[in-house]
Order: sequence, then C-alpha cells, then structure tokens
Amino acid sequence: MDKLPIPVVVREVGLRDGLQSLATVMPTARKLEWLRAAHAAGQREIEVGSFVPAKLLPQLADTAEVLACASTLPGLLASVLVPNLKGAQQAIACGADAVVVPVSASRAHSLANVRKTPEEAVAEFARIRAARDASRSKMILEGAISTAFGCTIQGRVAPGEVMRLMQALLDAGADRVSLADTVGYADPASVRRLFEKALAIAGPRLCGGHFHDTRGLALANVFAALELGINRFDASLGGIGGCPYAPGASGNVASEDLAFMLESMGIATGIDLSALLALRARLAGWLEGETLHGALWRAGLPKTFVPAA
Amino acid sequence: MDKLPIPVVVREVGLRDGLQSLATVMPTARKLEWLRAAHAAGQREIEVGSFVPAKLLPQLADTAEVLACASTLPGLLASVLVPNLKGAQQAIACGADAVVVPVSASRAHSLANVRKTPEEAVAEFARIRAARDASRSKMILEGAISTAFGCTIQGRVAPGEVMRLMQALLDAGADRVSLADTVGYADPASVRRLFEKALAIAGPRLCGGHFHDTRGLALANVFAALELGINRFDASLGGIGGCPYAPGASGNVASEDLAFMLESMGIATGIDLSALLALRARLAGWLEGETLHGALWRAGLPKTFVPAA
Repeated sequence: MDKLPIPVVVREVGLRDGLQSLATVMPTARKLEWLRAAHAAGQREIEVGSFVPAKLLPQLADTAEVLACASTLPGLLASVLVPNLKGAQQAIACGADAVVVPVSASRAHSLANVRKTPEEAVAEFARIRAARDASRSKMILEGAISTAFGCTIQGRVAPGEVMRLMQALLDAGADRVSLADTVGYADPASVRRLFEKALAIAGPRLCGGHFHDTRGLALANVFAALELGINRFDASLGGIGGCPYAPGASGNVASEDLAFMLESMGIATGIDLSALLALRARLAGWLEGETLHGALWRAGLPKTFVPAA
Repeated sequence: MDKLPIPVVVREVGLRDGLQSLATVMPTARKLEWLRAAHAAGQREIEVGSFVPAKLLPQLADTAEVLACASTLPGLLASVLVPNLKGAQQAIACGADAVVVPVSASRAHSLANVRKTPEEAVAEFARIRAARDASRSKMILEGAISTAFGCTIQGRVAPGEVMRLMQALLDAGADRVSLADTVGYADPASVRRLFEKALAIAGPRLCGGHFHDTRGLALANVFAALELGINRFDASLGGIGGCPYAPGASGNVASEDLAFMLESMGIATGIDLSALLALRARLAGWLEGETLHGALWRAGLPKTFVPAA
C-alpha cells in the first residue's frame, strides 16, 4: 500500500460525458451553477463540454460559455473533449487548459463513432499538435484511448493493438495518454495487465483512467490502477453517463463514491464530500426523470469517516 | 496478480442475511426452489437460514426444513447462522455442515444485538465447541467477527480489539474465523490492513470476508482481500440484505456481480453466470416490492466474457 499515490485527482466529467448521454438539455445557467458548486466543493479538474457540431450534441452546444466561466474559477483546470482539429482550434481560441482527444482502439467502434480508422484519428491528432504548437498555446493534449478493454460492436480489442495505438499517439505529440473502459468490460486483472503495459510505454505520460460502472466493477478497477500509481480518474456526479447500448445501465463511476473511497483510504482528493453530496442532491432535482447512480448518497458518510489530510 | 487464489467460493447468504432484512416472508417451497436453482447454477456453499427464535425472525422460522432439503443436494456445504448454544444444538441435530457464529467486535453493537459482551459471546462459543465435540458431529464452527470495520452505534472499532477477539475465538475452538463489514464502513486500505493482521494470527483458519455494499465499495474491498489470498466471500443474490440503519441502502455484495468479477479475472467460482442471472430474475419476481441491487443484471454479460476454466 506504500505505493498508493497521494493526492489523486477525481476529474469531473459529468458536464460532458454525463450530460451528453441524457435526453435532458441542461440550461447554461444551471451548468454554471454546477461548475461553480463543484469548484467550491474542491474539484480542480473538470471536463466542461465538447466542441462538436451542435446538431450532433445539442446538450453541449454552450461549451464555449461554460469554458468562459470555468476560466474565472481560481486553480481550475478546465478541459474539453474534441474529436478533431476543428474542435481543437475552437478549444485553443476559447482558452481551454486541456483537450481530451478520444481515439478508439476498436477499429469497428472508431469507424462507427467518428468514421475514421484509428490510424486516421492518430493523423488528426498530429495535426492538432501542430496547430497547438503553431498557436503558442499551452493547452495540454491528452490522447484518450477508448474501448481499451473491449467494445460492444467488435467485442475483444487486443492489448497489443491498444499499446500500438498508445505509442502512435505519443509519437504524434500527445502530452498525456489515458485508458478508458468505455463500456464496462474491464475487471481488476485486465486493468492491472493493461496499465502495466501502458506504464512501460508511456511512463509518467500515462495520466489516468476512465471507468464506467456498467457492471459494477468501476471502483475495484480504480483500486487496481491506483496500486500501480495511477493518480487521475474520470468520474461523473451521480454516476450519470450511461451507455447507449445498455439502457438503464450505470454510467461513469460516481464522483462522490470515488472520492469517498479515496478519502477513506487516506488519499487526499481536495474534495469536501459533504459539499459534493449536497451538490448531487441538487443535480438529482435538476435532472428529474433521469436515473442517477452511486451508493454513498443513500447511506451517507460513515460515523467513522475522517477526510484525508 | 500471481497471488490471486483460484478457485474462490462465493458463499450465498441471500437465504439468510438477505431474507432476514426483508418484510416479505418467503414461503418455504420458494426457498427450496431458490436453493435447488442456486445449486444447479453451481453454488456449492449456501447459508440456508438461522436457528433463532421464530418470534424474532419469522422469515427464517423454516430453517430446519430448508436445511433438510439442502442435505439432499450433492456436494453442497450448507451452513446456518446461530447466535448461541441452543441454536448450535439445533444445527447439530439437523445435520448442518457448518455454523456461522457471529461475534461483534463492537461492544455497543454486541450488547444491543445479543445482550452479551464480546467476552460473553466468546464464552458461549467455547460451549458450542464443547457441545459439537461431545456430539461427535463434524460440523464446522466459524467465528464470524461482525462490525470489524466499525459500527453505526459505537463508531470506530479498534483493529487491536478485533484481533484480540479473533485470538479469543481461535482459543475457544473456532475451526475458522472470518471478518465482516456489517455496515459498509470498510475501504480497500482498511481491508488490507485488517486482513493482513488477521492472517498473521489465524493463518489458513482465516476463511473469508463478508462485505456489504452500503457505500458501493464491496467489490473493491473483495479485490483488496483477494490480493492477500482470501478465497471465500459472502454474497447475496440481487444484493438483498440492507442495513436497518440505512433504509434503501444496498445490502450484501450481489452474488452475480461478485461471481462476474471473479470469473472475468480468470478465477473459477464454479458458477454458471447465465443461470445465476436467470435465477436473479425469478427472485425479483418473488420479491416484488422489495429493492434489489447489483449492476450486472441490467447490462448483461460483456460480448467478450469467457468463464474461467
């Protein structure tokens, strides 16, 4: 356990991965309320939206406005997801601190999702890097390998293929890379195997993991990655996110449950759990009719809970 | 990961820990249906009930009949929970393969629950051992330390106190001891710390862990214990169980989610997951109006799932 990293970042992706999966379109003012409250609760890395055509994702059409608000919050690292160069250019223009560029390790998923092969996505990543460098922006470029543990379309994704893609992203100029279990196919053993391989390739440039709780294993998977020293995990408040292929299924690991696990273990996250639980209660009201997930909110904090120092 | 134990036993406690917490009293015929179907799905250790006064737990008043059925199922190890000598004598008379004797590490919980101090409970355990030996029964005696990670009444339970109790149970003649997080206060770090201490005291007589999913950490806690070689975990189908102090909260870790995690990791459980999921669907029908938990049942098995050999 000496190996466990401290502190650990719970990167909030509810405003992006969470909201994009819901039918409800959250008004901009409410997103700003969420953003400010998340910041007040101690969250310091937040994915605030995505630069994609508004007709594809009307839920995220106001990303520029949310990002503008984020830039006023002290100490906040605001990231956005971008699928291509055009999105990255918007992110640069709007002053995003970081962009997350998803590249699917599953060829079938990549073609279905962005109509590009993984190789074409890597070539686009290189163009994003060139644009970032030309603009003299300091925006961090993260290559996020999705469906790294398998895919609902293609099924198995070979670990060798994932590593080949990771190396290609690093070669194309990624500042960081991360691994995502987009559809809840990972288990603690496969997490350990894949993250061990990834550490060998990327070293400290391997920045984090993104686990969906589709089959209940997200926190166990996080723990397996933590044991390897991984110190940044995506999560969404109330576990919103879901998967279009599994209606009603849990989405991203719930931010509050993840922060609770970490803080209980003595791993500082900077998050005030009571404030985060209060925000979750507000979110539940805002998203009436949508299913929220997670366990901590029902039972509350244990009598013995002590936040990590 | 070389250390991970294979096989691992998912001990079904739904018929005891699960049903005792529900308002619904399941008819005996249905319990037998559950029992036979669980056995057919590959479950080989099942806690079938509890010998306690029927006025205290009417849900379990038919334990002798369920046990009689269990003894006809080939290869099944049927256990019952007993709080005292009288219950153990019934278990011996009915031919239970094992009894689980809960002893609370929290003095406050012990007094509230069984009106005995932990020391008095250990003395009762010694009397159970004497009765077992006198009867020439081969029934296994398990001392199950409850509230080992804290308690909703007392709050913190000192690890030293838990270890003292474990040693006392071993000295009193326990064949096996186990640790239970009765109220969902454990985290992977505290699990590792306490099970490491327990292994030092009990060695192979430390037989397993019992984790409630009250705050969502049960599977992460199981994984932490697995890494120490622990190879038997209690679980209840559909995660029934709950905690009287946290209405609506999740109960025991769900058997199907636990078996899924293990099998995904290549750890054989002997369980046919499709059969167990089908049984869960029947259980949901039988317990209409009660809340079931777990995640796997919504999403189903991954396309890539391969049972452990």
